[in-house]
Amino acid sequence: MATERSRAFVPGHVTAFFSAHPDPDPAVAGSRGAGVTLTDGVETLVVPDADDHAAESRAENPSGGDGGAPTVTLDGEETTMGVVDDVLDALGVRTAADHVALASDVPVGAGFGVSGAAALGTALAANEAFDLGRSENELVRIAHVAEVERGTGLGDVVAQARGGVPIRIEPGAPGHGELDGIPTTARVEYVTFGELSTEAVLAGDTTTLSDAGERALTRLRRDPRPATLMAASREFAADADLLVSEVDAAIDDVTAAGGSASMAMLGRTVFALGAGLSAAGYDPSVCHTHVTGARLVDDASRSSRR
Amino acid sequence: MATERSRAFVPGHVTAFFSAHPDPDPAVAGSRGAGVTLTDGVETLVVPDADDHAAESRAENPSGGDGGAPTVTLDGEETTMGVVDDVLDALGVRTAADHVALASDVPVGAGFGVSGAAALGTALAANEAFDLGRSENELVRIAHVAEVERGTGLGDVVAQARGGVPIRIEPGAPGHGELDGIPTTARVEYVTFGELSTEAVLAGDTTTLSDAGERALTRLRRDPRPATLMAASREFAADADLLVSEVDAAIDDVTAAGGSASMAMLGRTVFALGAGLSAAGYDPSVCHTHVTGARLVDDASRSSRR
Repeated sequence: MATERSRAFVPGHVTAFFSAHPDPDPAVAGSRGAGVTLTDGVETLVVPDADDHAAESRAENPSGGDGGAPTVTLDGEETTMGVVDDVLDALGVRTAADHVALASDVPVGAGFGVSGAAALGTALAANEAFDLGRSENELVRIAHVAEVERGTGLGDVVAQARGGVPIRIEPGAPGHGELDGIPTTARVEYVTFGELSTEAVLAGDTTTLSDAGERALTRLRRDPRPATLMAASREFAADADLLVSEVDAAIDDVTAAGGSASMAMLGRTVFALGAGLSAAGYDPSVCHTHVTGARLVDDASRSSRR
Repeated sequence: MATERSRAFVPGHVTAFFSAHPDPDPAVAGSRGAGVTLTDGVETLVVPDADDHAAESRAENPSGGDGGAPTVTLDGEETTMGVVDDVLDALGVRTAADHVALASDVPVGAGFGVSGAAALGTALAANEAFDLGRSENELVRIAHVAEVERGTGLGDVVAQARGGVPIRIEPGAPGHGELDGIPTTARVEYVTFGELSTEAVLAGDTTTLSDAGERALTRLRRDPRPATLMAASREFAADADLLVSEVDAAIDDVTAAGGSASMAMLGRTVFALGAGLSAAGYDPSVCHTHVTGARLVDDASRSSRR
């Protein structure tokens, strides 16, 4: 088994609205909805154990020394991330990895799909690092299943795999789900006021939320334009009773300044297409819609890409 | 109707192998197979008529003056391209467009999917230029249908929409077809010896070809790695009796030099992953696998993309 350190970049994903579709099979479970993938995202580095022969001794003593689970870091700080562990387990390489280093442009727990990005980035980079020969659909499925089983997300992974401005028509992993997209590129601004627990919302009663999400999706599919995405998102936030006060106030400020903003689902985050937050006097982070979707990072393609 | 000139870039697509799946419904018809999308491709510029009011006079005199069909140019030379006309017709904007300018990095008729790129680029750029509000799947379907009806291709459009190293698991446009991909990035080299007519091959008996294509797909899906893609492609070229002598000789040269090459389906073109053609003493064009897939081009996203 060839082993080399490998990196993947996965765009952040701001969900504009969604409906939850649980299922006993985590590959079938997921969400319908729409959102925006971002050039701000998460880079994942997977580093195999240096010594290939270590794998044999490790089999006899899985918890000892460097033969155990890999170290996981986020922006240099040691952390634990269930989805990373689960993806490595699903690929059969958890004890063969030395460490997984995540570097995020976007805050955790604020509605940018960091856990989905970590899951998918780990899958792509580990497949490359250990030359596992899995297809892209298989890797997306493994990352999606990890997210669903951990309760950290329902639709980020498939959206992040696709890139652009994805519409999730049918829930679930490749082979079950179905995607479309709004053909557009746009500047995206965002301001985060703090964390909001996706797990807590998804674990509660999601009936009202999902009804609002289905209405928003019907509206967007009738007119798949950026302006309709933002309007449907605001209506969803109000109908599903998810708006937090700082975000609500910021949306009003942007609207008053002639722009269009909404809330990231689920985070204390306001996002705008164009320069709406700047125009309203905020000091937002600025990025763009991500045209690519999740991908391996290599220096050759980086320099020549167009 | 807002109108502004709009541009789209669509990657070239080299088909490694395929099986043909005709159907009375052109959205259902298509091909299974696999290939490589390229950073070399086609940029399409759609320019609406300058005068919006011209549309009214044009309705009365559709063939007169600038009220008729748009001028189509390829690398500055006036040309005719059935798929471009058909896509504009399907979108209802053929008489509202002043001209469509195609700029291609790759040669026409040599197995790079230029007609598919022109069809899809026209769809994306016209949707933006005339603010038509179609979704990405709808635009891909329109371009795919134009290709199939003109007999110029069966699987390029869906592959070019996706990018990367696409595997076409099920034939047809979005909603019918199904795609996977090999998660890899690679340098791609190619040399073209001349044209080969896709129309002529597709119009003949494709039974042997399709049997060989199905075997190649089974082989690749069992082991979705770049090396297997190339080996399956060479086997397909031999089994389907498509190899032309210059390409056959070049493949042998690359193999003798320790590399891996195959023939672009359908063109007098040899392509290699890595530096196989250079190593064998050829002077190839060099590009990379395209990570993005077809997309609108705007200067803001171009400078900030990562």
